[in-house]
Amino acid sequence: MSDRELDMLSVQIRDFLMDKVSRTGGHLASNLGVVELTIALHRVFDSPKDRILWDVGHQSYVHKILTGRAGEFDRLRKLGGMSGFPKREESPHDVYDAGHSSDSISVALGIAKGRDLKQEDFNVITVIGDGALTGGIAYEALNNAAASKGKMIIIINDNQMSISPNVGGVARHLSRLRVSYAYTEMKKKIRAGLKGKGSFGEGLYRSLEKARDAVKYTVFDRSMFENLGFKFYGPIDGHDISELTDFLEAAKRSDESVILHVVTKKGKGIRTVEENSGKYHGVGPFDPVTMKSSKEKSVTYSDVFGSRITEMAERDSRITAVSAAMIDGTGLTEMQERFPDRVFDVGIAEQHAVSFSSGLALQGLRPFTAVYSTFLQRAYDEIILNICMQKLPVVFCIDRAGNVGEDGETHNGQFDLSYLCHMPNMTVMAPSDNKELEAMMEYALKLSSPCAIRYPRGKVHERNRELREIDGKCEIVKKGGRVVIIAAGKCLWQALKAEEILSGRGIECGVVNAVFVKPLDEEGLLKAAEGAELVVTLEDNVITGGFGSMVNRIFAEKSSHPPVINIGWPDAFVKNGKTEELEKIYGLDGESVADRIMKEL
Amino acid sequence: MSDRELDMLSVQIRDFLMDKVSRTGGHLASNLGVVELTIALHRVFDSPKDRILWDVGHQSYVHKILTGRAGEFDRLRKLGGMSGFPKREESPHDVYDAGHSSDSISVALGIAKGRDLKQEDFNVITVIGDGALTGGIAYEALNNAAASKGKMIIIINDNQMSISPNVGGVARHLSRLRVSYAYTEMKKKIRAGLKGKGSFGEGLYRSLEKARDAVKYTVFDRSMFENLGFKFYGPIDGHDISELTDFLEAAKRSDESVILHVVTKKGKGIRTVEENSGKYHGVGPFDPVTMKSSKEKSVTYSDVFGSRITEMAERDSRITAVSAAMIDGTGLTEMQERFPDRVFDVGIAEQHAVSFSSGLALQGLRPFTAVYSTFLQRAYDEIILNICMQKLPVVFCIDRAGNVGEDGETHNGQFDLSYLCHMPNMTVMAPSDNKELEAMMEYALKLSSPCAIRYPRGKVHERNRELREIDGKCEIVKKGGRVVIIAAGKCLWQALKAEEILSGRGIECGVVNAVFVKPLDEEGLLKAAEGAELVVTLEDNVITGGFGSMVNRIFAEKSSHPPVINIGWPDAFVKNGKTEELEKIYGLDGESVADRIMKEL
Repeated sequence: MSDRELDMLSVQIRDFLMDKVSRTGGHLASNLGVVELTIALHRVFDSPKDRILWDVGHQSYVHKILTGRAGEFDRLRKLGGMSGFPKREESPHDVYDAGHSSDSISVALGIAKGRDLKQEDFNVITVIGDGALTGGIAYEALNNAAASKGKMIIIINDNQMSISPNVGGVARHLSRLRVSYAYTEMKKKIRAGLKGKGSFGEGLYRSLEKARDAVKYTVFDRSMFENLGFKFYGPIDGHDISELTDFLEAAKRSDESVILHVVTKKGKGIRTVEENSGKYHGVGPFDPVTMKSSKEKSVTYSDVFGSRITEMAERDSRITAVSAAMIDGTGLTEMQERFPDRVFDVGIAEQHAVSFSSGLALQGLRPFTAVYSTFLQRAYDEIILNICMQKLPVVFCIDRAGNVGEDGETHNGQFDLSYLCHMPNMTVMAPSDNKELEAMMEYALKLSSPCAIRYPRGKVHERNRELREIDGKCEIVKKGGRVVIIAAGKCLWQALKAEEILSGRGIECGVVNAVFVKPLDEEGLLKAAEGAELVVTLEDNVITGGFGSMVNRIFAEKSSHPPVINIGWPDAFVKNGKTEELEKIYGLDGESVADRIMKEL
Repeated sequence: MSDRELDMLSVQIRDFLMDKVSRTGGHLASNLGVVELTIALHRVFDSPKDRILWDVGHQSYVHKILTGRAGEFDRLRKLGGMSGFPKREESPHDVYDAGHSSDSISVALGIAKGRDLKQEDFNVITVIGDGALTGGIAYEALNNAAASKGKMIIIINDNQMSISPNVGGVARHLSRLRVSYAYTEMKKKIRAGLKGKGSFGEGLYRSLEKARDAVKYTVFDRSMFENLGFKFYGPIDGHDISELTDFLEAAKRSDESVILHVVTKKGKGIRTVEENSGKYHGVGPFDPVTMKSSKEKSVTYSDVFGSRITEMAERDSRITAVSAAMIDGTGLTEMQERFPDRVFDVGIAEQHAVSFSSGLALQGLRPFTAVYSTFLQRAYDEIILNICMQKLPVVFCIDRAGNVGEDGETHNGQFDLSYLCHMPNMTVMAPSDNKELEAMMEYALKLSSPCAIRYPRGKVHERNRELREIDGKCEIVKKGGRVVIIAAGKCLWQALKAEEILSGRGIECGVVNAVFVKPLDEEGLLKAAEGAELVVTLEDNVITGGFGSMVNRIFAEKSSHPPVINIGWPDAFVKNGKTEELEKIYGLDGESVADRIMKEL
């Protein structure tokens, strides 16, 4: 197709995206931003022979459309439907299963080295956002790639945003490159030269390179990427298919690895989205005319955290908050507005967020570090060494813990209990409702050691009974019978549902709210289970190494005890779908728990 | 003291280090390299008011000497003795407990921000090696620091080595800066100017800066650190106390954060060490005259791994090996010599090592990724997403698993079973001896899914009985009696010792080698425990979430079973000492296990 026809295609794709995503929900702004870039990539390169990698992968919708999956968009992110991220099992055009930020250069380098070892011949291209460039692994890979053979093409998709506007030195550096007008003018001349010759042979690439070198030292000095050892070209207009095509062709011809600096606009083409790209990063279903959400907004656990932390910060000047490009998502916007100096957004950089928090704590401050469960995985080592080993009073407020629904297996927070419980000196709590979350935050502040509070995505449960003091003990919500269900966090509600069902079937059932996952209230739990025929643990986490395994131990060492069964997420990755649907499938909802108990009895 | 007196002090300190470290063992080359730098830091700055952070911390011996701990060096790294790393509980001069690479800039930025919030007034200085600069968290912190207020001084201790020579773009970039002769000449003139004025006031700093700016654009273009937004000065001769003093004073006066590029020589002053700084990075006791190790070298698990992987690589061209600045330590030197193209040292960059391995696997290769247990913690998230979620056949060869002895709590590999077992699709094995390690490597190659083999530091145990096929089953080493001990990995030898003792006391005891930690041979283990009064699990890992917890579950869900007790490392950080001493203290040696069993019975 001609440039003009491809421009028309862009318009069609944007219409398609608006139509589909407004119905299913999904990642909107980032996909609107890469329409031309994706078209140009598929024009110049021969996927799947050439490998196109999408860092994070939430911007892969256009790629999915162009590789034969337009028909799947009605079931985007739904149970059994297409994932919102690249998946190898979906298509040979999806090179790796992306989901967490900043790893694509590493994977691409591995593929490039593998290609060269096997003496195969294809291109490896990765598209990585400027936001993802704040993640350390991207730099580890750039550092390694710079000194390695193994040619690849790295496209920096510079939209000045991750979920929130980007922070840090690299963002500033890119912005300096972006506005370099003189260079942009020179680039036009280079392109004109390219066009003149009509083809993209080796000679042409060399002339491009020469012109580039001439510019480099006169217009501005080397970029940090050039200092690392890369060829670096840009800024390139990421919405100009013709310009993109020229530079991608040139990069393809290069013998060495090349970084292309492509500037795009998140939400491009839809004014409301362009102007509020943060808000339209990930969306639920919305009305494409009014652009308003079709769902009523309910109060979430994040909201409760956000209000309470602001309140606490008012009365205690030691309180600070740290997040990693998730200020809004974790509910910290209010506190950031009220105390801009005491809220730190460190970029997509979870490791640094944690070690930085340790520094604040060493200075006598009390950081509350709010990160999604799945992303905090990146900082596992730092939590152990920088926080737990030094017994520093950092409070981890772990949002999106447990199943997160539509985002699927890369985003579920189903491992945090397992990765936190074996860390010495760590206290781990899971609130079952709004009041308990607040009380736990106050308790955590009094504690002078590492602490984690983990709570789920979405609508908060509201306390419907008196609040017990948080004191290390479990809460007996309903005194025991033949069965005792011990639930962690929000699973209390599923346990209560199961109890109701069982009670209707004439089976008396006790319900315990664990409150603490670590240290476990061993005495309280053993006592609660006295006389029961069956003990059931219930958690929004994988069973292995989590809450159930903490409970198993205190029973297993006894010479006689009721059998203990663990209910939680299986030893598997749980795909996209609604949380309620998935809980049903995997046996975590009230009905399934009741059925399982009937069977066991 | 005058420059001259301080030079004399350097000589004394080097003598002291050689004398002490030759007796106790410890980190030698890195400490010999920073004698002048440490002296200059303590000359210019007022510790502990000013905070001096040591990245990794193995180069903190001189700092320990200068802060009143020379008398502790006879018990360096010994049980109850001084740690080889900075420890806050040892001295107010130790700002944070370092141990893993690359986190010091993060911690320093946290401290600097905390200082400013509390309106306190002191300097924050961090010393970070060029090797540590290959770790992603260092870059996350630099990126954040570059765009933040919060002044600190970052000293790049450029010795061109981590444990092995450094790799990557940054190393090459630093080397380019290092050899910039014209710039070095100019620096002399700047210093002469500084000296002339006799003091280090604000005006002087400005003149330094001006001169520097003049140089910058003429001699070479901006360094990548300048592009990030830092003031950057160097190269500075790291063995010239007078030059170091001038630049540190100037950095102290600066209003903004400054990076100083200090060039040192690892092992400086002791020719054998200078010439073999890799070998003398960490040493056991040695003869300071002949420089030969006092201990006979024994064959280690790493050696067995190294020979076998080379042999396997000979016959299977898909086999590749990946490590993160631990080629020698993990035993990969032989394979690297034999197949330089198929062994990848990616620098101190565990996250990238893992994601890079996934790329190799995507290309049909079979990477064996060899990393120490404690450092693999850094790649927890990447193992889950890049390897397990995609079911890629990467084999993790996890060296230094379990207790590592003298390096202490920052280096113990006591968490890997806990962090690996809850990862879906992961197979986890622990060999009890040389032959089993080899057999497991062959088994892992046949497996086409993620796999981990974890083995301890030090001398390998030699198989003294026929090798069973590795087939997912446990090995009944001695058929059951009143007690059955189920051991994972090298703990089999402690179990056998306990059995011998118990047998001497008339108690019949079964011994099972678990072989597989995940998936557990549930049937085999339940059968092995039939008729026993007590089941004991024994592992070289923390109990929580590890092997014991895997075993607990299969028993806890039964309506009747013998009590199961778990023996392993406690829910605590285990300090420096000999592994055998620590096993005794924590009840993991054969005698303690036997005693515990007697007590339980």
